[in-house]
Parts: sequence; structure tokens; C-alpha cells
Amino acid sequence: MTPAPSPLAVPFPPMPPIAGAVPRIARAGYKDWGRCDLTYVELAPGTAVAGVFTRNVCCSSEVELGREQARLGQARALVVNAGNSNAFTGYRGREAVEAIMAQVAQHLGCPPSEVFVSSTGVIGVPLPQDKARAGLEAVFAAQPCAWEDAAATIGTTDTFAKGAVASAVVGGTAVSVIGIVKGSGMIAPDMATMLGYIFTDAAVEPAFLQAILSAASDTTFNCITVDSDTSTSDTVLAFATGAAGNAPLAGFDDAGADAFAAALHDVCRQLAHLVVRDGEGAQKFITVTVTGAQSDESARRIGMAVANSPLVKTAVAGGDANWGRVVMAVGKAGEPADRDRLSIGFGGTWAARDGQPLPDYDETPVAAHLQGREVDIEVDLGIGDGRATVWTCDLTSGYIAINADYRS
Amino acid sequence: MTPAPSPLAVPFPPMPPIAGAVPRIARAGYKDWGRCDLTYVELAPGTAVAGVFTRNVCCSSEVELGREQARLGQARALVVNAGNSNAFTGYRGREAVEAIMAQVAQHLGCPPSEVFVSSTGVIGVPLPQDKARAGLEAVFAAQPCAWEDAAATIGTTDTFAKGAVASAVVGGTAVSVIGIVKGSGMIAPDMATMLGYIFTDAAVEPAFLQAILSAASDTTFNCITVDSDTSTSDTVLAFATGAAGNAPLAGFDDAGADAFAAALHDVCRQLAHLVVRDGEGAQKFITVTVTGAQSDESARRIGMAVANSPLVKTAVAGGDANWGRVVMAVGKAGEPADRDRLSIGFGGTWAARDGQPLPDYDETPVAAHLQGREVDIEVDLGIGDGRATVWTCDLTSGYIAINADYRS
Repeated sequence: MTPAPSPLAVPFPPMPPIAGAVPRIARAGYKDWGRCDLTYVELAPGTAVAGVFTRNVCCSSEVELGREQARLGQARALVVNAGNSNAFTGYRGREAVEAIMAQVAQHLGCPPSEVFVSSTGVIGVPLPQDKARAGLEAVFAAQPCAWEDAAATIGTTDTFAKGAVASAVVGGTAVSVIGIVKGSGMIAPDMATMLGYIFTDAAVEPAFLQAILSAASDTTFNCITVDSDTSTSDTVLAFATGAAGNAPLAGFDDAGADAFAAALHDVCRQLAHLVVRDGEGAQKFITVTVTGAQSDESARRIGMAVANSPLVKTAVAGGDANWGRVVMAVGKAGEPADRDRLSIGFGGTWAARDGQPLPDYDETPVAAHLQGREVDIEVDLGIGDGRATVWTCDLTSGYIAINADYRS
Repeated sequence: MTPAPSPLAVPFPPMPPIAGAVPRIARAGYKDWGRCDLTYVELAPGTAVAGVFTRNVCCSSEVELGREQARLGQARALVVNAGNSNAFTGYRGREAVEAIMAQVAQHLGCPPSEVFVSSTGVIGVPLPQDKARAGLEAVFAAQPCAWEDAAATIGTTDTFAKGAVASAVVGGTAVSVIGIVKGSGMIAPDMATMLGYIFTDAAVEPAFLQAILSAASDTTFNCITVDSDTSTSDTVLAFATGAAGNAPLAGFDDAGADAFAAALHDVCRQLAHLVVRDGEGAQKFITVTVTGAQSDESARRIGMAVANSPLVKTAVAGGDANWGRVVMAVGKAGEPADRDRLSIGFGGTWAARDGQPLPDYDETPVAAHLQGREVDIEVDLGIGDGRATVWTCDLTSGYIAINADYRS
């Protein structure tokens, strides 16, 4: 019953252990499936946490609570339920989350506010408290698992486990940054990934961790889209256990802060790309690069309009260098643009410049480029210095097949 | 090669002649197809005109010029080219339109500004002037045709000819209002239909015609979506020949103005629905009714977020009453909403009320409703009096098949 891996799948990378962060998995049975669906990561006392969350106003209790908890900056545990998002379940949904927080807090002897809970799956069915309770008892007793197992367990319609690794030297101390993420539908701007978790053994002050996570998300998770739909549960959390023993990073003036921020950004970018690579029905990985816009933010909006256009995405699916649809998408973005200065290219070959098709445009190299798994679309507005890169996948009948029959 | 008619197709209605508006068709050969592709409607001297146009900033020369021409309020002819949109073709595209205007103006002995031109089809290829010139000569010599033939000739990927009729009594005079329209991809808010034309024998002052056309468009053409993509060529023009001989309508104080505005609105609504019924790959006609929003405009935006959501549209395609996806779409609209007051229903049956699934929710009638060709989705925000209705179709693998291989 497991779908074949996406043709854009990449292998799970070798991952170092992260001292102070121990993953375990168990089977709570949230759905009638023979797989683990509860992930538990125990975190060392003093672990700093930061988070970015969906802007969907109908967000889940997990997101509501998680947003408040992240402001406090301290974490002792992460619990991820797969198969039931617990969203739009009213007070019963909130009670289910609070029960999980209380049970874990009692187990660890910590405040409930330090227990972070995420849930993913069908909306509108309250998370069954009995299953969660028994699942937690099982996971407390389980052996630690590999990060790859945790990455597989947080997935729902994902076709492969997704992880990313980076490292940095902070004040003479080597630190690791790893991340796991799940997709893969309902992926849109304003927190693109459904659930992503980053762990590092670096010591980082919560406020600084939040600042660099937010900045990294803006150019990674918030620059991908699969289908323009924004989940009610989207969450990215970063946990810094401090076990590496470096002097805690509190700002960019600290030695190694730039390297650490770069490593965290790198992991965010890798994870964001992995979500696109497992976009439902995806056959091609599309990079849209926008230059010459009035501002970076304007470039990002134009890039997202292109990346979200069903007509652009189906053209790429069909291997059709239909640059007219890119023009259309640029024009509908509602951002400053001058039709007669606009240029469109594919894979480094301009198809149109300054508002007109090139007279000697040879579609042969473009057609060859569009046959590949990685398609680049270049848009130059010709009116400023703003630039952005966004990522998406093509829109295929596979997306329809997956989503026309998800619940059954 | 002609695709099968949409399962949502309806027969072309019987249409009265409109005195002062005579349609003709010919074959210009804009594409290599064995069908007429040039439509010409000659209008009596003194015909008033009003128009609404795409807000896509990369609009075609036809739209740029048409917008200026419509402000002058007078029309003698309409020319519609099918198979080539002439958009994004720079000065050569503009020259092609001006050449058509000049040729028709010379034929009729009128100012070029009274000749309205639309083009639809592939973007980025300048309209060949020689084909247009010969096509116009042929059409000038052609016999008048039925409106159904004109409706078929303006189509591109349309699977059936679309027309609408209404009538009114204006100051004791019976007047007719008819319309033809083409779709059917690249349909989105901000001028939803690609090309729509309305003809009436009523006498109406141009400014008043513009006012009622704009108002009617706001709740009809601007409340439909097929794929959220906004064409560079979207145009609706209304022509009032005045041949019925009523005292010209100049405002709502005039006798019969309300009835005429209602008839024009009725034609716009019918045409808008027809575009959705021929949405690419459409199998179901979806009506989204939003009530209890903070304002009517907020309700419209929420309705469009639901109607544009690929996950909602694929759920309907699969006959899946997945109201959780409706919640998600409401939440991503960015409009005021309170998750715990939100109610979602299908076909008159509430699935969720006040932010929670109904305890006694019986999915049987909803599942039966979703098996039909017409699916109603009800959203009640519970926070105000704003309301709106929008229309869309489901998203099927047929849409992918059509759009992944359009140019070839």
C-alpha cells in the first residue's frame, strides 16, 4: 500500500548523534496501519527552543499552544503524532494536547510548557486520548532509535524519509545541526513545511535561536510551495541542547555565530527542498529565480505566483517551454512589473527579452532542459535590484490521484 | 481531435436577433485547424459600449487599447481572433491590432477607436497581419451567421458553445439581452472569463452601461474560478445598439432601468456559470456559499480561497466530504475568522458547527450529494452579516492532461 518513492527522492544522509536529544518511536495506532506513528524526542535540561508556525487562522491547538511555549524558550521533549492532525476539534482537541503535555511532564519531572506536541493527518477528528496515553507509555519504554526512523515515523503521505545535516565550529567547538521534516501536500507560503524539527548540540540563547530560525525560514520554508494550500498545523521547531559545551551564542557578535547561523540556514534549505522533492505527484523539481524586481519581497511574491500557477506547473509536467504562462503568472502577482522590460528564460536560455520573444529563439536546448528532473525558470523584471529564489514541483495527475482519495 | 463536451455542458439557448448587431464568421487560419477562427460583429451607428478587463499587468495590446476605447463609449464593430492571443508580442502585437482596427474602420467609414479587437490563444506569437487581413476580407463578404456559430468560433479549448439570454421591458419597450462567452482555463478572480460579449437592442447611455456592467461583473465573472490563473487577455464587453427605440437609459431613476440591469446581471451570471461548466477537466459544478463573514468582500475572498484550493477541488473530484480541507482554506484566506465559531456544510447538511464536528454527523446524505454533478459547499463564519457566493469546478486529471500538452 506504500506508494513508490518520489522520482525526486534522495537518500537519507548519515547523521551524527546529537548529545542531549534522544529520539524514540512507538505505535499508538492513530490510524489502522501497521507502522509506528508516535515520535518522542527527549531533550536535555536547559535545551533552548525556537519555532515558526502556520499563519492559518484556523490553526490547531498544537500550534496555538506551541506558539506560546516557544516564547518561553525552554524545551524538554517533543511529541509528534502522525495520522491525525487534531485540528478543528474544539475543546476536545485542546484537552488531548494538554493531556499529552501533562503525561510527559510527569514522566520527566518538568513543567508541561516544556513539552512540545505536533500532530499531522486528517483534520476534524479529536486525537484519541487513550491511544495517545498508551502510545506514550510504550515510547517511554522503547529503545532510542535512529533519526531516520524518527523521520519516517512523522510522515503521512510522504514517500521517503527526509533529513539534513550541517556543522559549524563555534568558539573552537565543533557543533552539529540536523533536521528532519515531513511534507508533502498543503504546502504553501507562510510556513511551507507541515512539520520540521531541527536539533543541535550547540548552546544558543533562545532569543538568538528564534532570530536566526525566523530569518532562515523566510528564504527557505517560506519560499517553497507544492499546491498553495497552507496547513492548519505547519510547524518548524529548532532545539539547541547545549551539550557541545560552547559558550552560549547570544548574538552575531559572538565567535562562531555566523557559522552556526549558516549551518542552520543550510539545514532549513535542505529540508525545504526535500519537502518539494516529495510534493504529491511531483516528477520535476522546479527552481524559479526572479531578478530585477522592485524589491526582494516583490521578487519573492512574483516567484511564488509563478510557482503556484497550475498552468505553469502543468506545462513543466508536460515538458512544454510555455513561457507565455510564466508571463501570465508574473502579471497576476499584483507586483510592479513592466511588460515591455520582462524577460523569461529556462535553464539559462532566454526565450523572451524585453517583452518579446527572441527573434532567433531556438527551443531545442530549452526542450532538452525541460526533459530533465530539475527545471530552472528565470524571470528578469528589468526594473530594479530585488531578487529571490523559490522552489516548487510540477503538477501531475499523480497529485489528483493522491488527493481525490486521501481519507478512504 | 475535438474533445468530448464537458459532462456539465448545457445546450445553447434559442436566441432572438439583436437589431443593430450582426455576427459573421470566417477562417483566418491563425492555427492549422479546419474551423472558423475569426468572428466579426457589425454594430449600428450610435451603439454604446462598456467593458471590464483583466487586471493582469502583463495584459495584451488588445486589452490596453480596448480599455481606452471603452472609455469613449462608442462602438461600430467587434473582431475576435481565436488561436493566437497576440499577448506579450511587443510593438508587433500592437501594430497587428491597429492594422485590424484601421481595416475595419475603413470598411465601415468610422473612427478606428470604435473597432474593438480581442484575441485568445497562445501567448507570445505576434498575430500574423496577412492572415488577419485576408480573414477580415472574407468575413466582410460572409453571410450573417447564428449567434451559436459566433459563440463556437470565439472558443479555443472550449468543449461547447456558450450563450445566455434575458429580456426586460424598458419604458414600455421590450428589449433583449444576449451574451456569448468563451473559457475555459486561466480563469480566476479579477476578470474571470477570458472573453465575453453581451449585446442588447436597448438604448443605454455608455456611462450607465459601464456602471451596471461593472456591478454585475463583481458578483458574477469576478466570483468564478477554474484554476486561479488570471489571463492576460480577459475581456467582457457590453454593446447596446439602441435599435429597440426606448428612451435611452441614463440612470436608475429611469423607468425600466432596474429591469434592464437585472436582465444584464442575469446574462452575466449565466455566462459566468457556463465558463465554470466548461472548466478544463471539470466533472462537477461547485457552488461555495459563505455567510456570517465580517463583510461581503471578506466573504468573497474566503469563498475564492475555498474555490481555489487544490485540496478542496480534488476532494470534491473524489467525492470526499473532506470538510477539514474547507477549514484549512478558510483559514488561509487571511480574512477575519474565528475557528471556534466556524461551521461547514455540504448540500445543506452541516458537517461541523462552531469549530467542531457534529457529534451526530451522518455522512450518508453528504456522500450522496457529492456523487452528483452539482456540489454545494456552505461556510458560515458566525461573526457578521457578510455573504457571497462563488462558483468553481473540481480539479481532475483531465485538467492536467489538457494543460500539460496544450501547445503541441
